[in-house]
Parts: sequence; C-alpha cells; structure tokens
Amino acid sequence: MGVTIAIDAMGGDHGVSVTVPASMAYLEKHAEDVIVLVGLTDAIQAELDKLGVPQDRSNLRIHHSTEVVGMDEQPQSALRGKKDSSMRVSINLVKSNEASACVSAGNTGALMATARYVLKTLPGIDRPAIASYLPTHTGQVCMLDLGANVDCTAEHLLQFALMGSTLVTALEHKASPTVGLLNIGSEDIKGNETVKKAGELLQASDLNFYGVEGDDIFKGVTDVVVCDGFVGNVALKTAEGVAKMMGGFLKEGFGRNALTKIAALVSLPVLKAFKHRLDHRRYNGASFLGLKGIVVKSHGSADTFAFECAIERAAEEARGGMLEHISEHVEKWHNARQANGGEAA
Amino acid sequence: MGVTIAIDAMGGDHGVSVTVPASMAYLEKHAEDVIVLVGLTDAIQAELDKLGVPQDRSNLRIHHSTEVVGMDEQPQSALRGKKDSSMRVSINLVKSNEASACVSAGNTGALMATARYVLKTLPGIDRPAIASYLPTHTGQVCMLDLGANVDCTAEHLLQFALMGSTLVTALEHKASPTVGLLNIGSEDIKGNETVKKAGELLQASDLNFYGVEGDDIFKGVTDVVVCDGFVGNVALKTAEGVAKMMGGFLKEGFGRNALTKIAALVSLPVLKAFKHRLDHRRYNGASFLGLKGIVVKSHGSADTFAFECAIERAAEEARGGMLEHISEHVEKWHNARQANGGEAA
Repeated sequence: MGVTIAIDAMGGDHGVSVTVPASMAYLEKHAEDVIVLVGLTDAIQAELDKLGVPQDRSNLRIHHSTEVVGMDEQPQSALRGKKDSSMRVSINLVKSNEASACVSAGNTGALMATARYVLKTLPGIDRPAIASYLPTHTGQVCMLDLGANVDCTAEHLLQFALMGSTLVTALEHKASPTVGLLNIGSEDIKGNETVKKAGELLQASDLNFYGVEGDDIFKGVTDVVVCDGFVGNVALKTAEGVAKMMGGFLKEGFGRNALTKIAALVSLPVLKAFKHRLDHRRYNGASFLGLKGIVVKSHGSADTFAFECAIERAAEEARGGMLEHISEHVEKWHNARQANGGEAA
Repeated sequence: MGVTIAIDAMGGDHGVSVTVPASMAYLEKHAEDVIVLVGLTDAIQAELDKLGVPQDRSNLRIHHSTEVVGMDEQPQSALRGKKDSSMRVSINLVKSNEASACVSAGNTGALMATARYVLKTLPGIDRPAIASYLPTHTGQVCMLDLGANVDCTAEHLLQFALMGSTLVTALEHKASPTVGLLNIGSEDIKGNETVKKAGELLQASDLNFYGVEGDDIFKGVTDVVVCDGFVGNVALKTAEGVAKMMGGFLKEGFGRNALTKIAALVSLPVLKAFKHRLDHRRYNGASFLGLKGIVVKSHGSADTFAFECAIERAAEEARGGMLEHISEHVEKWHNARQANGGEAA
C-alpha cells in the first residue's frame, strides 16, 4: 500500500520551481504513493502546467493554503501569525492523518516550532531532535542532534540515542544498531560532565553503546552518533567545510594547466565516482524525531534532485513505521524508568 | 640572535628515534639556534652517534634527566611522581630562562598539568588554551581551544580570543587579525547562552570580531576561530575524519583497475600537490597559550618531519616575542577591565 506525503510546495529558496518537479520525479518512481502539494493553487498549477502534468492524476492533489512563511521569518511570527501557511497546513495534514508524513524546505526554526506545537512530542520525549544521514567510509551514519537543542542534559542525549537507534531500525532494518556518544580525548580529559553522565545512562540502557570521537563519525564506527545540537551542528558544518575545501583543491589542481586538464579528462570516471560518493544532495532530508508525526526538513537551497531525496526519506520513514517503532521503544523505556523510580532503564 | 629550544627527547610514541633526527634537521636550517635535548643521556647519545653527529657541536646540548612520562600516564601521577622526567625538566628550562621554548610529543594531559604547575598562567588568564593552525582554502587559520577546557564561560572564550589574536600577530605580523567566534545557525537558534554572551563581550572588545559557523573555518573567513575545548576538539577530529575519508575514496577510485591506475599516474603531480596542501604534518605543533612560557605540543605519533615542524613553531613563537605580545595585550585588557569595575573592556 502506498503512503501519502504532504509537500510544503512554497518552502525553500526556490519554492514551487523545485518542490513541484521534485514531487513529479518522485511519483514517476513511486506510482503507488500519493503526493499532496500544499500552497498557493495558482503557483502550483502554473508549475504543473509547465511540466505538462495532466489534471486528473489520481495520486496527486493540490491543497490550497493562502500564506507563505519567509526563510528569515521568526519562528514565533510564523507560528502565531500564519495559521494558513503552506508549512503549517502540511503539518496539519499529518496531524489529521490525511498524510503519513510531510516535507518542507522552509526555515528550520519555524518548521520545528510549528511541528512541535501542532503535533506535540511523544510521551517520554522532552525535546524533538534533528537527525540526518551522512556518508562514511563504509556506508552511512545517522547523526543527531544537528541543531534543535543547544543545551542538553544527559537524559536528553539518552533520548536522542533511543530515537536515533529506532530510526535506523525502521529505515535499515537493523535489529540492534550501534550507537556512539560523541566525546573527546583518549588521554586526559574525557568529555564534559553531561557527556560523562550520558555515557553512564547509555551504558545502563539496552542500547548497543560505544564512545566515539569526531574522526570516528566518518569511519563508520557506529550506525548512530549522538551529541547535543551545538556540537552536532558544528561537526556537520565543519565536515561540509572540509569537503568543500578539498573539492576546491582538487578542482584547482586539475584546472592548473593544459597537462593537468588532460589528467582530469583521463581521470573523469574516477572523479565522477568520487563526487557521487560525497554528493550531499543524496543525504538531503533531516528527520525531526520525537514528534507525534513524521516531518522531514529539506535544505532550503535544495535543487530538484535533493528535494526528491528528502521526499524519499519521508516516504521511507512512513513505510518503515518509524513512528510506531519509536513510540513503542520510548514507551517501553519510559515504563521501565518509572518502575525504577524515575531512573533511566 | 638565535633562540634556545628545549626538546623533551623521550616524549611521543617514537621517543629519541624521532625527536633527535628532527632536532638535527631543524639545526641544519637554523644554525643560529640552540637545541637542548632533555632525557636519558645514553639513549640520546646513541641516536646522535647513529646519525654521525660530532660531539662538539656548539648549538647542541644534552641535558640529562632520569625519568620518562608514559603516553597513558595520568597527569597527576606524572606531576607528582616524576619530578625528573624529560617533560618536566624541559619545562623547568623554560621557567629558568635557560630555554626560550620547549617542545614535547608527550601526553597532552600530563604536559598541560605540568606546564601549568611549573610556569603558572599569565595574570588575567584563568585557563591556558590549546591553539593550532589548520589549512584553509586561502591559507591557514589559528583555532582554539582544542581540548584543554571542556566547560568554558563567556569570559574564558574572550580570553582565548585575545590570546589567539595575539599569537597571529606575533607569528604572522598581522596588526589586527580577524577573530571568529564559532556559533551555529543562521536562522533560528543562534547558539547557546555562553556563546551569545561571549559574542557580546567580543563585540565590546577592541578585537576584530566576526561570528562564524563550522563551514567558515575552512573558507578562511577569519585568522582566528575561538570555541570551547569540547567543540574545538570535535571540530578538529571531524575535519581529520572527513579528510581521511575523502583521501580514502580517491585512493580507492584511482586504484580500482588498470585504467584508473593509468589515470592516477597521469594525475600524479596534481595528486601530490593535493596531498601536500592537506599534509597535517605541516600543521603539527599546538601552542599552549596563557602560560608564562612557550610550550608546544607535538602530536604523539609525529614522524621526524612533523616533529621538526613543531620545533619550528616553538622557535617562531620565541622569535616573534609571542609571550611579550600576549602579556602586554592581556595586561592592557586586564587593567581596562578593572578600571571598568570588573567588566571586560
């Protein structure tokens, strides 16, 4: 059976010119699924006409909404002032079960505030987290939190670990994913107090726990890497920065003169494969975990291919029963914890 | 006039087999400088004999010490139990002004604890920080703290900024280096409370201040990047991890078959230049800033070339009058702050 995905058609730097073609590309591959394009009907229809999409496609619907959340708009302004925004209405469709998941390239703060307000957090989860996949030497790693929570307690980190582990189970069908707690130092200072305490909680949990350092993320040492949102965001941006710099060095090197340009030509298949392995567009689509509904955030500047990858992620989460997995897992942990008099299981 | 550098000859994974040849390589280029090799005389002499170094070199001395700090030894055990270690005696030579700087590849925790105990911190500096240079797209950036302080106040971050800025002035002769405070998020949550407050302090200071994100580090947006030791260590290790992964991808790609191996051969000059630009050995040598003396920490696994780079860094700091620069700068700031009734200037 197919899943229904609500798309915030107006979100992101490029709006309908990316979200609509990406949705059509997705439906090409997944005819069994349904897409609901949420936003200004005229703008969406104009884009569909441009693409020559027939009016009567059974797996495509437009859901009109009158407002658009700006990319720089304050979360509270979007939340209070724009109740009919394409972002909010997409989330409403998840809340009312008319859609199994929603995808938005709108601004992160507004999306998180709205999703949290409309959907609420799962029982046992204090704060939602942002999780995303990154490439590793051996495959991929799921990392969270990537920026939703800048100040976290040990308990929060445990909850992130629980959610990340369950996401990997739902998406990759791994029974007991390995979970790494991001820490520093092999010699002297072993992390701050919060991380030390989180390590103890994880050790006592039934999660498959490891301590990891920054360089382990990309070695693929664990399936999941957990950290607070400040550290996660810095690590993510640092990784992007290094990748960009190295790509730039290679480009400069191969572009230097006629000889190096010939070398580039000869090396084209290798360079193309290299680029593909690192293509961040393939990893587009960050999951907001811990909510009573599936919300996937696309990068604001995503192109059509990248946005399609985010839709793919949302659909995979819906198909994999991510929400049921997390609810069940968290409930079990929550009950065990209450039975232990408030201590984490 | 030359400078005198004390070398902890026994430190690091490889001890004298790296530190002694690196010292000789350094003296080849800097005959005006003096090196004092600190450690077990027999081991050092054997290594010098192996290299065929004549006994009467005027710019080379052996300073005997009887103990060696282990790479996994607890800082407190090294500090209290090994008063005649090559590490401690090297620092003592800086304290007594017999050397202008010292270099050790010994364990970070023990080196920091000992340096702090023997040399003490500069007036106005609460905690020493670890600073190192990293390659950027346009040159290099000085980043601190890289792991000495996992929990920092806004005031500490300001002190790091002050020290980093002064280090760049001393080493690169830039009058007013740009200083970036590492933060997250362009949209919603703009960093945690400490970083926000540090931003205010930096804004009010006479430093050339910018807010930066993880990806800005490697763009070379600023001369200095400041963050707490936990974040800095994670960023550093993450960068290393990504660089290693990408290097691995390239190697795999070019090694795949006969055709790609030919492409690698044709591309050799480009790949060599690429490797050189990213060669972490060239950036070996982390400065312990905020102490009343120059201490440079080499990576424990450094090879001869990398250790020589660390000696080079120590000598540059001594020649550039790094200590005087920092003392002066910090004193000025400290006085202005006291005149303002305890508020940072």
